[in-house]
Order: sequence, then C-alpha cells, then structure tokens
Amino acid sequence: MKKSEEKILKDQFAELGEVIAKNESFIIMSHVRPDGDAIGSQIALGFSLMAMGKTVYLVNEDGVPESLMFLRGSQSITTPGEPVDVDVAIALDTATKPRLGERSLHAAGRAKFWINIDHHISNPAYGDLNVIDAGKPATGQIIYELIQQLGYPLPEETRDAIYVAVSTDTGSFQYGSTTAETYEMGADLIRRGLDVGMINAETYDNHPYRRLELMRALLNTLAISENGKLAHWELREETRKKLVLQPDDSEGLIDLIRGVKGVLVAAFFEELQDGKIRVSMRSKNKGVNVCEVASQFGGGGHSLAAGIRMAGPLEDAKAKVLAALETALESPVH
Amino acid sequence: MKKSEEKILKDQFAELGEVIAKNESFIIMSHVRPDGDAIGSQIALGFSLMAMGKTVYLVNEDGVPESLMFLRGSQSITTPGEPVDVDVAIALDTATKPRLGERSLHAAGRAKFWINIDHHISNPAYGDLNVIDAGKPATGQIIYELIQQLGYPLPEETRDAIYVAVSTDTGSFQYGSTTAETYEMGADLIRRGLDVGMINAETYDNHPYRRLELMRALLNTLAISENGKLAHWELREETRKKLVLQPDDSEGLIDLIRGVKGVLVAAFFEELQDGKIRVSMRSKNKGVNVCEVASQFGGGGHSLAAGIRMAGPLEDAKAKVLAALETALESPVH
Repeated sequence: MKKSEEKILKDQFAELGEVIAKNESFIIMSHVRPDGDAIGSQIALGFSLMAMGKTVYLVNEDGVPESLMFLRGSQSITTPGEPVDVDVAIALDTATKPRLGERSLHAAGRAKFWINIDHHISNPAYGDLNVIDAGKPATGQIIYELIQQLGYPLPEETRDAIYVAVSTDTGSFQYGSTTAETYEMGADLIRRGLDVGMINAETYDNHPYRRLELMRALLNTLAISENGKLAHWELREETRKKLVLQPDDSEGLIDLIRGVKGVLVAAFFEELQDGKIRVSMRSKNKGVNVCEVASQFGGGGHSLAAGIRMAGPLEDAKAKVLAALETALESPVH
Repeated sequence: MKKSEEKILKDQFAELGEVIAKNESFIIMSHVRPDGDAIGSQIALGFSLMAMGKTVYLVNEDGVPESLMFLRGSQSITTPGEPVDVDVAIALDTATKPRLGERSLHAAGRAKFWINIDHHISNPAYGDLNVIDAGKPATGQIIYELIQQLGYPLPEETRDAIYVAVSTDTGSFQYGSTTAETYEMGADLIRRGLDVGMINAETYDNHPYRRLELMRALLNTLAISENGKLAHWELREETRKKLVLQPDDSEGLIDLIRGVKGVLVAAFFEELQDGKIRVSMRSKNKGVNVCEVASQFGGGGHSLAAGIRMAGPLEDAKAKVLAALETALESPVH
C-alpha cells in the first residue's frame, strides 16, 4: 500500500472509532448466501464490540451455513426479524446494499447511521461512513487492522473468526491478493492462542459425505475440449434432489477443473429448480475475458470469474455458452 | 520452543556454519520419491551455497517429480551417477540413511563428512553433524532459519523453494505443526519479492488432467461404513495402466475422504504391478491407532498415518484390513 493510502485508512479508522465510541447499539450484517469472510467478519467485529459493553445484534439474511457452524460465536447470528432499536447499522463484506437482503434491510430500518466496511473495489460507498480497501484480501483483515489500530478487545471468538474469514477468502493464504501483512496477522493470531491445526481441520476437513457424492457426480460429467483449454461439468436437478444438496455444497468445486494444467477456462452448468440454468465460469488468463462472454447472455462478473443465469434446457444453454467460450479462446485479447 | 532448545539449535547452526565455511564442495540429497519439502529444501540450501561460491551437486535418486518441475532451480537436480569428488554430503528431510536411495549413497561415497538436517522425530542422527528439529513443520523451515542465522545469501531460487517446501508440508499453512514463526517466514519471503499468487497457482492449480480422471475412478469405488466412521476407496492396476498414472498422481488424495465429517479412519487400497497390495490409512482421532492395525499385517507408520504392503488379491487384503479397522474403531484407546 502507498503511504498516502495508509494515511487515509488510518483516518477512516479513527473516524469509525469516534462513531463507535459515541453510540451504544449496533446491528451488524453481511451479504446473502454468506461465505467465511461474511460470517467471520460479523463475529469478529461483533464480539469485539460486545467485549466493550456495546449492545450488538448479529443478523444475516440466510443465517449461518452448516459448514461454518463450528465457529464459536456463530450461534449469536440470527436471521432477521422485526426492526431492532439500534443507533448504527454496519454492513460488512457487502458490495451493494441490496445484497444484505430485504429482511435484513427491514430489520436495520431504525438505524440512524450506516457504516460500510468492505474490500470489494466495486462497492459504491453506500454508507454514511465507508471503509473500502480493495488492497485487502478479505474484509476480515480490515476488521483485524481496525481492532489493532483502535486498541479494541480481541476475544477468542474474534481471533478465530478473523482467521477463518481471511483463510477462506485467500484459498488458505494462496491467492495473489495475500500480502505480507496477511501472513503477519496469521502469526499474531497464533501467538494469541489460535489452534491452527484444529481451526483448519474444522474449516476444510469437515465436509458432509454428500460433497464427495457431488464431486463424483460432477466428475462423471467432466469433459475437456480437444485442445485441452476448456473443461466443464454439469449438475442436473435430479442429482441435486437425489443427493439432498445444500446451496453451499458446490462451493469452490469449480477450482478443481480450473486447476488442470493447460486449462484456460473452466465452466460449471447447473440446472436450477425453476428450470433456468446457472453458468459459472473461471478464466486463468487475463486474455480470455469470461465476463465478456457472460454479458453476451445477460450475465456479468469480473474478467477472471463470471456467471450467467439463462433459459434452459441444459443442452441448449451448454451448446451456446461453450461455442462463445471457444470463440473467446480462439481470439484472446492481448 | 523452549529457550534451551532454541539455544541448542543456535549452537548446531553455528557448528554447521563452521563446517560449511571450511569446505568447498557439497553433494546435497534428499529422500526417494521426493515431495515438495525434499526437493524444495535441496534447491533452497543448494542455491544459497552456490551463491557463496561453493561447488554444489544436487542429486535425488528419483529426480524431480513432474509436479515440482516449475520450481526455478529444479533443473539443477540430477539423478545420481558415478561418485563425485566432494568434501561433504548433506542429507535433507530424510529420516533414515537408506531412504536416500542406493545410487545416491553410491554417488556420495567419497564425502568425508556427513551432515543430516531433518524434522522427523524418528531420525536416528546418522550424520557426523545432525540438526534434527521435530518442532519444525518442514525441513524447509529449518533451512530458512539456518540461512537467517548464518547470514547466508537468499537468492530467488532459495526463496521460492523454501515457500513451496513449507507450504506443501503444512497443507498450505494448515496443519497443527504450523507455528507463528512459519507465518512470519511467509511474510518475510513475500517482502523479499515472492509472487505468492503465482507460486501457489503453480504448486496447487497445475495438476495433469489424469489426476481428475484418477479422482473420478477412486470416487466411483468410494464406500463408507454404516456408522459413517470408516471410508475407503481402491485403485486397480488396470486403472493405473489405462490412465497412464505417475507415482505422485495419487499424492494427498486420501485427504479427500479423511476430510469427511464423522469419518475417523480413511483407507486407500492400491493394487501394485507385482500383485502386492499397498494400503494407506489415515486416522483423525488419536484413540484409533492405525499404526497398530498396520503392524498386524507387517506394516508401520505413525498413530495417525500408517501403511501396509501385503499379499493380494485386492478383495482378500481389503476384507482383512477393513475387519481389523472395524475392530480398532469399536474399542478406541482413551
């Protein structure tokens, strides 16, 4: 980070500290279909404020996914109900306000002040006070730095939740977004008593048996183009029903095909309950822009990760998208 | 680590520094069927010594596996030939001397002094000088600390190789063996210019297509006991031939079944070319000692990870071992 950016962030943290100091009650939210960084950031900030004696409501539109229920403090996150009497609403890791979910927005309706903390560059700064730092690999790391700078308490729930937030958003400290500070944070959390073996076993070695059944079903549909650059698989609604799949069961599985040597684009086709087809695409190469392909079918995303929701049946959607991907692969942008 | 242990290690590094200072030529080896820590440690120490102007031979009985050929400096590792004229032989990450391989031992035959650097607690200290630190998650981390303490050069090849050695031996900084110092080392390597996104993509997102085909073949044989505590799969020689598998293609795949919620023991049965059966077992629970089960069939290992090589056919071996595992699961040690 440049010196000037560091200075801005420090000033924002100081301003945030003032708002927190002069208010007593908070509703802390994150995005729908929450992942590790969403839930982890909620617990991390929530338990720190609670340790300061603040009144905190932790609310998520979809509650806590099964795979994150091992996190201490996750029991305190509820699904939204009637509006709560709070001074301040805090949105974490949520790129646009509607992504908090309608019922969450309703529950936070009485808040007089909005804080927006995020690491998504596309965040339009919808809060009264915004801390948006796209240089951080996870919102959890922003929360960590905020707590450090303001001298806030860092109870065990916060410690574990920060680690899980950052670990899950960096593919276990692997992605290019990971910085030296991320690793230093890991060291500090371990020195504060984090059980690194245990927390990773709970995060990564604790998937339901049906995830392997899903992996098997997907691998049995795996196909790769003749030149080896495009690999894809599919999930049919009947398989989803047969395996009684949960929404987060397929989380991250596309990385298995993205990780094949020589593959530049990975695509995942899913039949949804309403008959529509969801397409997830990953590119390994900036020259092959999957967002452009997505936009041809009304979808969107980033150049390296994009998605579409389009009309079925599966065969038609697949044929169209694969043809567009082949074209994109034939004429890469340099 | 206790203060006294730290002191011993520092003294050992100092002694090692004296031996390196007064000698000019070195053969650096590691174990057969090398993994990331073996190859990474060889490159790391080798290129540091070369940068000091020493003559270094990097030799591995089995050469560099395909999956690690991306490492800069890996081209310098050769398979052993005739004995080389060197002052000192250095064994890295190798728990017993024979594990270096017969041809490597032959190639190192003229060395007058043996250095043995390892993190396996079972290492019997077969060198003239031994640095065995079972408190470190990887030999690569011992090499890093040695270089730091002795003020040795840390060229780019060394920097990248240390990271890969430690990352692969800790499951990407996840295992319980990982310490705060491991994370601090990660931070330091990034500050020295390590491209963390790139090196992890090369380490983890670069598997051959046949690895997914192998995963599919294994998943299609996946079975789990009625109580959900024992999961296993198998690989037949005909599948190995059909997919033209390499020895390291199945590396780490057993973790997929070990990672299932509720599973306490994972077992992997492999038909070998000579008709024998190789069994790999992983336990998640110290109360279920898979080493004890292995020893019933002439195998060995640790309580949480053990292996057997036994007579076939596959069905018989499977029936016997699964029965023994069921018994071990029924009467766990507390």
